[in-house]
Amino acid sequence: MAIEIIVIGNELISGRKRDLNAWYASGCLLSHGLEVSEITTVGDNYDTLSSVLRTAARRSDFIVATGGLGPTEDDLTTEIVSKALDRHLFLDQTVLDHIKENRKRLGLCWSPCLEKLAWLPRGAKILDPKGEMCGFSLSEGDSLLYFLPGVPEQMRELMNRFVIPDILRRYRPANIPRHRILKVYGLSESYIAETFKDLSDELKRVLFGFYPCFPENHITITVQGKKDVEIEREFNRAEEKIRDLLGPYVFASDDKTMEAVVGGLLKERKMTLSVAESCTGGLIGHRLTSISGSSLYFERGVIVYSDRSKVEILGVRQETINSYGAVSDQTVREMAEGVKEIAKTDMGLAVTGIAGPLGGTEDKPVGTVFIGLSVDGKTFSDQYHLPGDRDKVKLNTSEMALDWVRRYLNGYPFIPGI
Amino acid sequence: MAIEIIVIGNELISGRKRDLNAWYASGCLLSHGLEVSEITTVGDNYDTLSSVLRTAARRSDFIVATGGLGPTEDDLTTEIVSKALDRHLFLDQTVLDHIKENRKRLGLCWSPCLEKLAWLPRGAKILDPKGEMCGFSLSEGDSLLYFLPGVPEQMRELMNRFVIPDILRRYRPANIPRHRILKVYGLSESYIAETFKDLSDELKRVLFGFYPCFPENHITITVQGKKDVEIEREFNRAEEKIRDLLGPYVFASDDKTMEAVVGGLLKERKMTLSVAESCTGGLIGHRLTSISGSSLYFERGVIVYSDRSKVEILGVRQETINSYGAVSDQTVREMAEGVKEIAKTDMGLAVTGIAGPLGGTEDKPVGTVFIGLSVDGKTFSDQYHLPGDRDKVKLNTSEMALDWVRRYLNGYPFIPGI
Repeated sequence: MAIEIIVIGNELISGRKRDLNAWYASGCLLSHGLEVSEITTVGDNYDTLSSVLRTAARRSDFIVATGGLGPTEDDLTTEIVSKALDRHLFLDQTVLDHIKENRKRLGLCWSPCLEKLAWLPRGAKILDPKGEMCGFSLSEGDSLLYFLPGVPEQMRELMNRFVIPDILRRYRPANIPRHRILKVYGLSESYIAETFKDLSDELKRVLFGFYPCFPENHITITVQGKKDVEIEREFNRAEEKIRDLLGPYVFASDDKTMEAVVGGLLKERKMTLSVAESCTGGLIGHRLTSISGSSLYFERGVIVYSDRSKVEILGVRQETINSYGAVSDQTVREMAEGVKEIAKTDMGLAVTGIAGPLGGTEDKPVGTVFIGLSVDGKTFSDQYHLPGDRDKVKLNTSEMALDWVRRYLNGYPFIPGI
Repeated sequence: MAIEIIVIGNELISGRKRDLNAWYASGCLLSHGLEVSEITTVGDNYDTLSSVLRTAARRSDFIVATGGLGPTEDDLTTEIVSKALDRHLFLDQTVLDHIKENRKRLGLCWSPCLEKLAWLPRGAKILDPKGEMCGFSLSEGDSLLYFLPGVPEQMRELMNRFVIPDILRRYRPANIPRHRILKVYGLSESYIAETFKDLSDELKRVLFGFYPCFPENHITITVQGKKDVEIEREFNRAEEKIRDLLGPYVFASDDKTMEAVVGGLLKERKMTLSVAESCTGGLIGHRLTSISGSSLYFERGVIVYSDRSKVEILGVRQETINSYGAVSDQTVREMAEGVKEIAKTDMGLAVTGIAGPLGGTEDKPVGTVFIGLSVDGKTFSDQYHLPGDRDKVKLNTSEMALDWVRRYLNGYPFIPGI
């Protein structure tokens, strides 16, 4: 059984836009045991797309194509399919009526360019006859082709509601692979590689993958097999081994984020947090509040970008800033204590640093960052030198700060700075 | 002349990771007039990759492949190339010595798994003999293949310093296409499509592309031609027409972001800004401070996630919150005025809303958002209903708030709410 994905769009072949659809479709298929062999990306171009479609129909059983079905004039997929597979276009009146009704129901006005959505190649079956999304399937020889719109929400809904069930009706994968991602923060890729050398020999049925995902490193565990119990056992053994090897550096699994882990811990302990940010400029607050229900534990944040705001809001002493600088151990401690005090929270977290590219000095080059945490009558602080450009320093600082909260609540030592 | 890209990695074919490299490489090639015809993504799999490599070498002049060159055991590209193109691997002692030296110089310890990086297929030429990155080129028949690491920074540097100059030495594109992206906020894709119908007939040599990029819509203008002056004229004409049609909805061109535009305006006018965020949780501050030099105009932000913090930091009256709610026109006005007052800035910007999925009511469903701007002795405010999930509501709210600053400073009316 072979399955492949075709992504269509000038914006994707020219670097104007990053793909979201092949990424989603391949993950979605794999989670049902359907392994994608190849993803091909082409422009809205007759010659290339025709040849790609014909090749795919020859070699694969299922083909999922996305993009180029919209109302704008650069959407050419239906037209190209019609020519490449030699099928006349016809106006599907039921589809047309349906689109018109839907627009009316949603209070949207009718626009003539929308008629295009109801023209289909002969033999095409609309995927969602009662919906408002274009997208159709087509048999060609022994292959089944699915054409989905490029709008990610629509593509995802059609994928989940129609394409996956349709494929599974025709083909039942024997092996359902199990995957898990373990997320690591604070160790380098080559350190992890070295650590895993023996492990891979020992766990022969387990496939490991290593993916830097700045500032984290992700380790994927894949086990294939027929028997659920066996897979489960192999799987758990592998995960246990990794956790033994890497200890508190593993902070989450699968799609859990650092902010979700921190949020979960705070909620569980019924503790509250406030944050004082300088160089991260609000990113820590943004990450914490990306979790629904975060108002339970996140009381407030202050983005103290100027010296004056550090003094006025947090009560950092002007003297401290004058003597040691706004980017210093002394300042970050007063920030952490200050925000905890004014917010009356259990924990006060603070960061100050030089995100660059400007502002570095010989003593405190770009990437110099201080983290402070005030909790249980104590204040912890340390200095880090984080590599990379402005975005990376901001992101890495926010990650390290959140990791401090995680490590404190779990009783792990903080990652030592320099 | 044909050029294609091959992206190698299980993480990319299985939906575990989103591609960054094909996206970058295709944009980079196109900006030099080198149009990519196809991008193929495959796993670290001998059969598929071999067949893709052989097909590519038959049909394309230049092939840029990325991924699978690292030190970990799932990096298999070199080995597969060696088998697929029938070339023995050899240990390049110069490369090995060089890697060892580099590690020493950077203060990093040697790790045996790094030796792998010095094994190359016969005929391979290392791209950066003096650098610390793996990556090599290889001739096969009439094709030239470039193999680059999957680490984005390394891939980009090798692309810019070696691959592009090497291709341009062998092939000079006759037509250099010119591209521009115009970014639009506040208009729907189908509105834009309708508006453009006549324009495309009128400007025959210009190719338009339309890409939703939530919450923005991007319009690309492409003109190809041999004469710089002609292209320039056609180009400017197209841009002018679009700006006439869409007016203040066009907020930036090319890779300029909303926050960069707002920052540029504030700097130019020598004005300062402070921000009070509730539902965006720090995202506005994060976006503003992603611009280097933003401390010139961004004085402070407060993330007033609790009612108490709104009262204590900003002086919002408890009475106002009790009578109208924390998500209300009255509250957002007091927030904007309050933050301007305490920060002593020229402008005070505030948002409050319900990002969801919880917290909505019949009166104020999820997506209800208030924006307030206090400036020049006046306070403006309005209510919006923004669609989508938590992330989208946060992002769209931050965009709308920044757009208010842009529109105010340019003398444009705000986008009306409901």
